[in-house]
Order: sequence, then C-alpha cells, then structure tokens
Amino acid sequence: MKSEKKTRVVILGGGFGGVYTAIHLEKLVKNRPDIEIHLVNKDNYFVYQPMLAEVVGGSVGLTDTVSSIRRLLPKTNLYFREIDGIDTKKKEIVLAPTFDHSAFHLPYDHIVFALGNVTDFRDNPGLHEHAMPFKNLADAILIRNRVIDAIETASTLPDGELKQKVLTFVVGGGGFSGTEVVAEVNDFARKLAKQYPSIKNEDIKVYLVHSKDRLLEREMSERLGTYAGKLLQKRGVEIIFDAHLTSATPEEAIIDNGMKIQTKTIISSVPSSPNPLIEALEYPKEKGRLKTDPTMLVEGTNDVWAIGDCAMIPLAKGNEFAPPTAQFAIREAKTLAKNIVAHINGESRKGFYFKALGMLGALGHHSAVAELFGKFKFSGFFAWLLWRAIYWVKLPGISRKIKVLFSWLLDAIVPGEHVQLKIEPSSGIIQLHYEPGEIIFHEGDIGDFLYIIADGEVEVFHKKDGAETLIATLHKGEFFGEMALLNQKTRTASVRCKSPTNVLALKKSDFGALIANLGNLRESFEKTEQSRAEQLSKYKKAQ
Amino acid sequence: MKSEKKTRVVILGGGFGGVYTAIHLEKLVKNRPDIEIHLVNKDNYFVYQPMLAEVVGGSVGLTDTVSSIRRLLPKTNLYFREIDGIDTKKKEIVLAPTFDHSAFHLPYDHIVFALGNVTDFRDNPGLHEHAMPFKNLADAILIRNRVIDAIETASTLPDGELKQKVLTFVVGGGGFSGTEVVAEVNDFARKLAKQYPSIKNEDIKVYLVHSKDRLLEREMSERLGTYAGKLLQKRGVEIIFDAHLTSATPEEAIIDNGMKIQTKTIISSVPSSPNPLIEALEYPKEKGRLKTDPTMLVEGTNDVWAIGDCAMIPLAKGNEFAPPTAQFAIREAKTLAKNIVAHINGESRKGFYFKALGMLGALGHHSAVAELFGKFKFSGFFAWLLWRAIYWVKLPGISRKIKVLFSWLLDAIVPGEHVQLKIEPSSGIIQLHYEPGEIIFHEGDIGDFLYIIADGEVEVFHKKDGAETLIATLHKGEFFGEMALLNQKTRTASVRCKSPTNVLALKKSDFGALIANLGNLRESFEKTEQSRAEQLSKYKKAQ
Repeated sequence: MKSEKKTRVVILGGGFGGVYTAIHLEKLVKNRPDIEIHLVNKDNYFVYQPMLAEVVGGSVGLTDTVSSIRRLLPKTNLYFREIDGIDTKKKEIVLAPTFDHSAFHLPYDHIVFALGNVTDFRDNPGLHEHAMPFKNLADAILIRNRVIDAIETASTLPDGELKQKVLTFVVGGGGFSGTEVVAEVNDFARKLAKQYPSIKNEDIKVYLVHSKDRLLEREMSERLGTYAGKLLQKRGVEIIFDAHLTSATPEEAIIDNGMKIQTKTIISSVPSSPNPLIEALEYPKEKGRLKTDPTMLVEGTNDVWAIGDCAMIPLAKGNEFAPPTAQFAIREAKTLAKNIVAHINGESRKGFYFKALGMLGALGHHSAVAELFGKFKFSGFFAWLLWRAIYWVKLPGISRKIKVLFSWLLDAIVPGEHVQLKIEPSSGIIQLHYEPGEIIFHEGDIGDFLYIIADGEVEVFHKKDGAETLIATLHKGEFFGEMALLNQKTRTASVRCKSPTNVLALKKSDFGALIANLGNLRESFEKTEQSRAEQLSKYKKAQ
Repeated sequence: MKSEKKTRVVILGGGFGGVYTAIHLEKLVKNRPDIEIHLVNKDNYFVYQPMLAEVVGGSVGLTDTVSSIRRLLPKTNLYFREIDGIDTKKKEIVLAPTFDHSAFHLPYDHIVFALGNVTDFRDNPGLHEHAMPFKNLADAILIRNRVIDAIETASTLPDGELKQKVLTFVVGGGGFSGTEVVAEVNDFARKLAKQYPSIKNEDIKVYLVHSKDRLLEREMSERLGTYAGKLLQKRGVEIIFDAHLTSATPEEAIIDNGMKIQTKTIISSVPSSPNPLIEALEYPKEKGRLKTDPTMLVEGTNDVWAIGDCAMIPLAKGNEFAPPTAQFAIREAKTLAKNIVAHINGESRKGFYFKALGMLGALGHHSAVAELFGKFKFSGFFAWLLWRAIYWVKLPGISRKIKVLFSWLLDAIVPGEHVQLKIEPSSGIIQLHYEPGEIIFHEGDIGDFLYIIADGEVEVFHKKDGAETLIATLHKGEFFGEMALLNQKTRTASVRCKSPTNVLALKKSDFGALIANLGNLRESFEKTEQSRAEQLSKYKKAQ
C-alpha cells in the first residue's frame, strides 16, 4: 500500500474489443507500475465468434472456439462476474455477488466500454420466449442439443403434424451469423437424420428469413451474397427474402409477409441492440451506441472510452463510422490502448482509421464465400480452405491453434458422435407466448405445469363426441392447470387462447414446493380448484 | 403391420448393464424378425464411468468419456426420455413428454431393469441441497466449473474467512468414485491456483470423509487401499477416517465425529440407493435391489429381468451375490441376453458366474493402484499406465478410442485451458438447509432472493454499534427478504437461524414475474412488507 495513487483502467467486456485492448495495454504499460489494468466479463473465456457456428455441427469440439481470458491476459486483474450497475458519479462498478450476497465495488479512473450488443427481442412478441439467440458458447451448445433432440424425438413419432413441426427449423437474419448458423443447422440435421430410417431427407425443412432481397448485403458484394443464397438453397434451405420474423409461439414462427411456419425450433440472430448497461448510461448516444470522437473518447467526457459494437466511432478519414465487425474491433483496440496511455501521460491522441482487408463467411459443408482487398472473390471449397487457414492463423495462442487443428483432423478421420450435453437451464418459471386459436394443453395431456396469465384471454373447454362446451374464460392475473397438479391426474379440460396471450408456466415440482410451504397460497389454489372441479363435473354431466 | 405378433423386449437404463444387454441381444436376434429390442434412457449417451473423474481435471475432453448410444445400438429402438411410470399390470412404460404434453406409452412383453442406483441424500439434512453428486457427465462438468469458480473468486477476495471457505473442498465417500474424484479435484485446484499470485498452495484445503479406517476397503486389498490413502495425503488431501458426512449447509460440512468444516463446496459419492422407479415396484427386493434367480429372472415372475446395480443376483457357484461393478455388469449382460432369447424359445436358461479379473483405480496426477488376478499388485506410475491401457482397450468403438487417444496426446503436449462451460441449471426455486446460528443474509447485502421457511425458525435482527435488536422471529410457512426485492434496495436487516432450518429461495427475477402477474400474491407481499418496514424503522429510531 504505497501512498502514490495508481491509475486504474477498467475495461467492461471480454469480446474482441475488450480483450484486445487489454492485450495491447499490457504491452504498453509493462514498465509503468503506476497504471493498473482491470477487466470484467461474465464468462472466464473469450469466444472466437467466427468459428462458433461450427460448434453446432460439431466439426470443432465444444470448447475449441473459446480461450481462457486469464491465459490471454496474465497481467490484468480479472473479474468474472455479472455487472450489477455502473455509478459514473462515484466512478465505480458494482459487481454481482458470487459465493455470498455482498456486492463487489470496483473503482476506476478510466473506463472502457466494450460490451458489444445483445440480441433484442423486446418488440417481437414471443421471440424472447421461443426463439433461441445465437451469440455465445452456451447458445451454440443449446442449438446443437435442440437439433439432436428434434431428430431423436421425430424418429419416435408417427407421421403427422407434430412430427413435421419438430423437423422444421426457422432461422431469422441473413447476416454473417444467421447464414453461418443456418448452414450448420441444415447440414447437421440432414446428416443426423440419415441414421434414422423413419426420417426422410425431405421431411426436414429449414427456413431462413431475411429482410433484404439477398443475403449478406452489408458484408459482401452482390455476386457473393447471391452465390451464398444459391448455395444454401441447393442444400435444402428455403430462403424467405424481404421478410421479417415478427413473432413466435411454442407452435409457429410468424413472418410479416403473412406466412406462418409450424415449428418447434426458432433461432434468431436479429434484431440486435446495445447492451442494457449502455442504455442506462447518460452519455451521448446514436442508435443506442456511445458517441465517441475519432480517438474513441466518449463525447463530453475525459475518462470514458468506448470500442467495438457498442461504440459509434467516426473514422479519422472520410465521413464514415467504423463498422461493427471483429476485424475492426481488433484494429480499434490497438489505437485505443495507445490513446489511453497517451491521455494519462498528457500527450495527444490519434484518430482511428482502417480499411477492411476483406470478408469471409463459412457456409458449412466445406464451402464458404470470400472477398479480399475489394478485388479477389472466391466461393466454394477454396474459399472454405482459405477461411479455415485465415481464422486458424488469427486464433489467439499456440495451444488453441493446436487444439483446433486436432479437432479438424479428428473430424476428418472419425465420424462425429452426436452426444447431447444436457445441462440445460431448467428455469423454474418459463415465459410463453401464444397466438389466438392456439391450444395450450389438451384434455388428457400430462399435468406438467401451472399457468398464470400475464396478458390476454384463454378459453377452458371440454369436448365430447365432437361437441365443444365452453367452461370458462380466464383473464390476466388468473391461473389454470392447477387441477391436474393438485390431484396428480391428467388434464381434465383443454385450454385455447382467445387473444395473443403471454403466460408464465411454473414447473410441477416448483409449484409443489411453493404450495407445500406457503399456507395461504395452497388454500387459495385449493379453493379455486374445488369450485372449478364442481363446475366441470356439472358441465360434463350436462353433455 | 403384420398380423403376426412380435415379442418386445424393453430395456430400462443405458448404463453398462442396459447397453451391453442390448449389444448382445442385437447379435443374438439378427435373424429373428419376431423379436424387437427397445431401450429407454434419459440421455442419448452412454457414460464410460471409469474415466468420468478425468473430465473434472480436464485430461480428457468434456465429451470424450461418453458414447452415442445410437451408434452403439444401430438395431435397437431407442427412446431418450424420462420414465414417468411403469404399469406392470398393463405391461407398459409411460415416458415423459418432450416436445408436447402427451405421454408416450411403450408396451412390453419382456422387461429388463438396468436402472443402476442413485446418490440418495434423503436421510442427511442439507446434503440434497448443498452437496454435488458425482454420477453423470453433467455432474462432472458442474464440479469442474465449481472448482474454477472457487479459484477465480478466491483470487479477488481479501484474506479471511470467506476466502478460506471458498478454497475448501470436502468429498464424501472413499470408494472408487470418491477417491477418483477427490484426487482430480485436489490436483486440479492446486494446478489452477498456480496462476494466481494471491492464492498460496497451503490456502487450498481438500478433505475426504470415509466411513472405514482405510480407503477402497471393498474394492482393493489392504495394502493397496492403504497405499492409495498415503498417496492422496502426500498430495495434500486430508483424510478423515471412520466418519460420515451427516449434513451440510451453504457454509459448512458437518461430520459425525463432531467436526464442522467451513466450506462452499461439498461433493458426495455416498450414500447410494436404488433408483426410485425400482422402489415403487412390487417385486421381491433385498436392500432395495430386485431379487433374481441366478439366470437374472426376477423372483416370482416370468418376463421381468434385472441386471447390474439394481439387481441382487446370486452367483451360480458359491453363496455370493454379484458385486455392483461395471466389470460384472458387462459379463452379466452377455448371460442375460442369452437367457432372454432362450426363455422366448422355451429353452432352458443358464446361471450367471464370473470371477473378477482384477481391480484398478486412478488417483490423478499420473498415479493409480491396480490388483490383477488376486496376485499382482501395482501402484504409482506403472499402475496408471496399465489403468489407461486397459480402459482404453475397453472403450466402446474405434472412433471413441481415437478421440480419447487424441485428448491424452493433447493433454501431454499443450497446457489445459480452464474454460468454464456455464450452462448451469438456474432452477427457479432453490432449496437450502441451515444449521442454528448461521446467517442467511446480512444487513447491507444485495437483495437477490426471496426466502420461504419450509421448516425451522429464523430471527430477523438489526445491529448498530455492536448492539443487536431482535425485530422478529419467523416460523414455517412465513417468508422474508421481500423488502429488498420490492424496493430494489439492499437488505435492511440480517436474518439468522434459531433451529435447523430449510428454506426455499426464489430468484429475484422469478419473484418479480410472479408478483407482477398474480394480483393476490403481490397484495399480500406488499401488505406484509409495509407493516414490517414500519416496525423496522421504529426499532432503528429506538436504538
């Protein structure tokens, strides 16, 4: 504890922007005991995003695309925790507790926002509940598990509506991550299905919904974007152009061109918006991103910096802004690290400028599209080889390089095993969205959940010899499904939505734990259950 | 749909017993279109148990110790679902729903119980809530993640009680799986900690609690068991002999010799008991295991078979029963498959007999103990090489063999990366057990959970200048912690247990979702919160 105060640079976020800024800072402050580097990230690993889609299909191992941040940053103080809040007045970050309940306060002198963006489903009813995002390692593994689950389940189902639904996959967004993931899902599902005589290749439907008239319109030239679309179509992906995925239910994906696709699996890489932590800040923003000067200092501040997808950085030449890609984030990081040190030293800062070298996108199944120096364009197998070679060279660390090489070798010589790593979040309370006319459960089904209506209206009905009797209409704040749970029986009636409906579903075991211990709650459920049971038996007798 | 009825053999369980029975049946019924094989298992993979502990330390890849059941059993009808019930009258299995809510009914002519056993914490308060079992792949990954989490967190904590607790690991049970897992946890934690200057090797405490006076007393000779204990002690494991782990809280492990070990991480491989599905059956049992004749037909039945850890099988020679080990299950499977086919054919069945070849146990860090043919005994590095060689030969399938070999090679040439695969179950309702005097939360802590008392008594108190004021005593069925959640503030008082207490903890986000939608519930919480807040401010003024 020396009396001399150290300057603390705190970086928030462990993506390309954050990690590379810290890497460069470590080099620059080697002989500067007066400067401390701190980095906060939720996970202890850095995700090599460009290879993430390969995890879905299994051509790289589950953890091959991630690197230990601690190994990349030996001289940085690291905190692998959630950020609970940012106090810009006190200049400190509040980190969420891990092994106890007390928060951790991390003060800063300089702060770097490198929080990237998040997939934001807020304006699309049902997407939050029923679409799987594709951002991090857990997402990729969950998508992989879902595809395996779907094929496994379909193989035991009789031909019909449910089987078709289970074998239909819908992906939203035709940018890099959407096309890469749809290519992998399509290849993987069709490859898997070959092991099951009861599933025909044509039973599998894979859709890609894209807002423009060709894929990758921001990332690639027209020729290559068109080629990518053609290639995916040839392999069995149906592309729905000029359309958006607007909402979703447990049974279907709803497209704004009027299409409704019956499916149990929706993956969406769009829309993306800045991290909610950025939203809560009072600094100047544009399109939700922090406005900086060309040196990456946030406008109107003297110690706040921003980089990557959460920043709006004007390039030092021309009128353009730095695009939100990994390639740019890596270059920005180098300039940013220099600028921070210069600023601390009272020296002048440099504006950021970079011209993209090229663009590469993998399309699964040993194919890719590539565009280099605005001139050379490749597609197919050679582009794919180039893609692998370039990304392999860029992988951080030699041990990572060896591991990925081993995985690729293995993938080439032994057939993949489709083992599901089932550590899925069994969240106690699940949110569901339904559209009018959809059935939440049928009479005779197993009682697995209690439902609480958060929004909308449902009809409880009983069917006998084709004739339907309406038993009750329930509204916001009311619950249903308690009967089968309290009596350990199957559902005694069916429930259908009258309007767009949001419900909370509480798992049977959690419901049991709650009512066993909250006396009031149990009484109130039992009372409702009793009066409903009487009413129901009256109706059933009357029929 | 031919008129000729097929004989359906349904196997429940995908461990050594179940999978190997199906493997042998597939060979035996190759030319028998009249016999169908079905197998039900929760996961789509078979776990190669003897290597599972290596996943914790990372010397094999996360999925290297598991094999796709579908690849092992190409001709068996497979169902990867939970079993909801067994109807022995109707002769059908009810499988839990996956993509919808309707159960799946699987009829059988012959049924094979191969359900193994489960770790059973029922008689040990707090173990269910706070001890991690070590049985399947998810368990191994969760233990790995926990060790990484503990070291990471400890590196950011100041020296003191909490840091010591976080760096203390307690393992219950000194049989094969307990010794293997304690060896891996000990090695891994100490290896990891080397990267953190703020953690000294002596800060890490690893305890093994065993009920006898030496390790592996059922599996190994005295000399080898003693050697294994010595080896672990030399590496830093403290072994507590002749003692049992009786209960646990979020803060400590309680041993029946009077010791209380302050810890945040408890792993227990004991006690184990039969699968609850076996418990519900009305067939003759001994020690919870199904009693069979030497041909593995369950006593008093004509179409019910049992194998492996859930069966009590008298050996055809002598008075002994087959021990519950993988080695025996594999041999039993061969006899069982033959007996089932013989029985269907109306031929006579053979009794099971086998004499164990030897015993092998890995102790991490390139060491193991081995005993072969009751004569040769090895320990140390050569035993470990032998262990690897033997288990490698026994690994099912050539592609699995290649993968594991690659992993071992990689592990030898590149340093492991300690990446955490955080897909942990974020179960909505968590159960916790506390002992008298323990604090559930402190004034000033972050409000992360609502607590409901399932059993016991707690005291709510406020502390000022060292003086404590008791605000309330709460009992079974009452809740606390709502104040900080409803007002988005930190805890306004502390809560301590007066008696052994079980509580349910509801995550802040789930609590929010529930009260936002259940009007009654919100009102009742708000009413309680208001009156408590008034009372509290009165107390605080009075102090």
